[in-house]
Amino acid sequence: MDEAAQSGRRGRASVRAARIQDVAKLAEVSTATVSRALATPERVSAEARARVMEAIAKTGYVPNPAARTLRSQKTYMVLVVLPDLANTFFSKILRGIEETLFEAGYGMIIGDLDGSPEKEAHFAAYTAAGRVDGAILLHGHLFGQSRGGEGAPDRIGIPLVALCEAIPGADIPQIEIDNRAAASRMTRHLASLGHRSIAYVSGPAGNILELERFLGYRDGLEAAGLSFDPALVIPGDYTIESGVAAGQNLVARASRPTAVFCTSDEMAIGLMRTLFSAGLKVPDDISVAGFDDIEFAAVAEPALTTIHQPRRELGQAAATALVALLQGRPTPKRIRLDTELVIRDSVAALCPMS
Amino acid sequence: MDEAAQSGRRGRASVRAARIQDVAKLAEVSTATVSRALATPERVSAEARARVMEAIAKTGYVPNPAARTLRSQKTYMVLVVLPDLANTFFSKILRGIEETLFEAGYGMIIGDLDGSPEKEAHFAAYTAAGRVDGAILLHGHLFGQSRGGEGAPDRIGIPLVALCEAIPGADIPQIEIDNRAAASRMTRHLASLGHRSIAYVSGPAGNILELERFLGYRDGLEAAGLSFDPALVIPGDYTIESGVAAGQNLVARASRPTAVFCTSDEMAIGLMRTLFSAGLKVPDDISVAGFDDIEFAAVAEPALTTIHQPRRELGQAAATALVALLQGRPTPKRIRLDTELVIRDSVAALCPMS
Repeated sequence: MDEAAQSGRRGRASVRAARIQDVAKLAEVSTATVSRALATPERVSAEARARVMEAIAKTGYVPNPAARTLRSQKTYMVLVVLPDLANTFFSKILRGIEETLFEAGYGMIIGDLDGSPEKEAHFAAYTAAGRVDGAILLHGHLFGQSRGGEGAPDRIGIPLVALCEAIPGADIPQIEIDNRAAASRMTRHLASLGHRSIAYVSGPAGNILELERFLGYRDGLEAAGLSFDPALVIPGDYTIESGVAAGQNLVARASRPTAVFCTSDEMAIGLMRTLFSAGLKVPDDISVAGFDDIEFAAVAEPALTTIHQPRRELGQAAATALVALLQGRPTPKRIRLDTELVIRDSVAALCPMS
Repeated sequence: MDEAAQSGRRGRASVRAARIQDVAKLAEVSTATVSRALATPERVSAEARARVMEAIAKTGYVPNPAARTLRSQKTYMVLVVLPDLANTFFSKILRGIEETLFEAGYGMIIGDLDGSPEKEAHFAAYTAAGRVDGAILLHGHLFGQSRGGEGAPDRIGIPLVALCEAIPGADIPQIEIDNRAAASRMTRHLASLGHRSIAYVSGPAGNILELERFLGYRDGLEAAGLSFDPALVIPGDYTIESGVAAGQNLVARASRPTAVFCTSDEMAIGLMRTLFSAGLKVPDDISVAGFDDIEFAAVAEPALTTIHQPRRELGQAAATALVALLQGRPTPKRIRLDTELVIRDSVAALCPMS
């Protein structure tokens, strides 16, 4: 029961007073290096710093916190704020961010807003308290601002980078795709296969991605010589559930569009499920297109035609920009990565006989 | 361009010196309450504390960090460590944790290990540095230990709770399902439908969930009077990709099992994709069962028969246990939540003629 004794009682591990010498010995460095790693970490190699930090964790050494705080506020940790972690779209983005940060000697922690402003206050306070060195924002606004950009942003004294959801007017590096061009391209693709009645399942109202993709849908219709019909716009919020609901909306209609452009893959997968349950076939009866190219898109039945976002590269680009800021180097203000139209099995040419 | 000026240059928001009076005014409390919220937060209501923290973020007020650190080490933040964030299994677990923590006045941040021990060191150091008040571990071992429990755990001086992946021998609250009983139940369900040749797609070697589910598979075979055939065990690691590979393994066989029990839904979805591509029908040619009941299970085509895990409740139970520890209250050491067999369309009775 040595192990249980060591891990302590009631989940609280027991702490004996470890000394700086214990840390130095375990990390195979001098005590001076341990002090430097805590006080002026930029003067120690990333490799030695990692060994010291690991030895600190192993020994349970607690440096004099007041002394340490006065000397250095560096945490070597970056906060990534997501609008909704449940969307699988984010997993590869996070991987791209994490691997780039890790290489530069930083860890990543994730905060999930799940749409709730009170939760944002929690992360804003944590950030303002200096518990991270920088933050990457994927939720489309600065701390303290509304989605529409109203209100003065919180004065957070650390570097920030915006990713995916652009923040109009914010003077920070912003990394994104061209959502408008991508949505236009998908709409033109559907039109090029003979579809004249193309429905659009939207993202959440007021969301910048939704705004851009909707403009792209209209661009695409116009380029194909099709007129815009508001009755073909079905509200969604990027979730599977809203795709299921959009499918019910379609099934209930007397006259149905021949193609549906869902602005997320999750919605497309939920929508197809509802169509199948109603006895409709994809793509024979109705073509369905997605957006994002999440892992499930390729293995859906039928496999989903969609817009591929370079998710890992988006994450890497955001982390690269943030690391540059953290190290005092210049970085471009706006980076746009390319998307691809991925043609699979869920979209077919409209047969003139049907 | 007022907004751009406020948000600062090169992503670094400008910080003017805000005073404690600014914070008090915005939070509509006295300056004494602001001081107390920082120095002895347990003496201030959660509601007032939240308002003060939000006002601190809004004004950019920086309390004397040394003074604050000396007086209180509370961060009101909890770290959740995941083995692999890309698995959609975790999204609802995180929601359950987050909502329970939030109610108790704590925020949640997430660390993703992605299978890499070096990343664990980062989180262990961050935790040891007192940047969170407690941690929930979903990766099956204590900081500093191997998966098998070898090595002395790091002496982390904060409350810990284990969730989903039990940590044998660790004297901390552990919340889980009965993986062995659930796997046995699914195996017996398949056998009850006439299947005599039931393949098993495993989780990662050495993983405690895999260990338990494999024992359950063997229990189920035995209960049904079927003998165990090692040739029917196909290696996997819970990911879609490993399900695709397991499907290729099956397709290549001269004689195929009539049912496949995949120990994660992601593997089942990937495996079905490969079977479809090879011209096989589910469940007509082969029955496929999953484990977890992620969101995609219900909308897969065909909808997946699986084991439902009460993910939100698991998260809530773990957070409730941690909050009890943080507040010095007792909490049970072991909590097991019930699972359910969910029967959908991917499993069929074996037709004696086929």
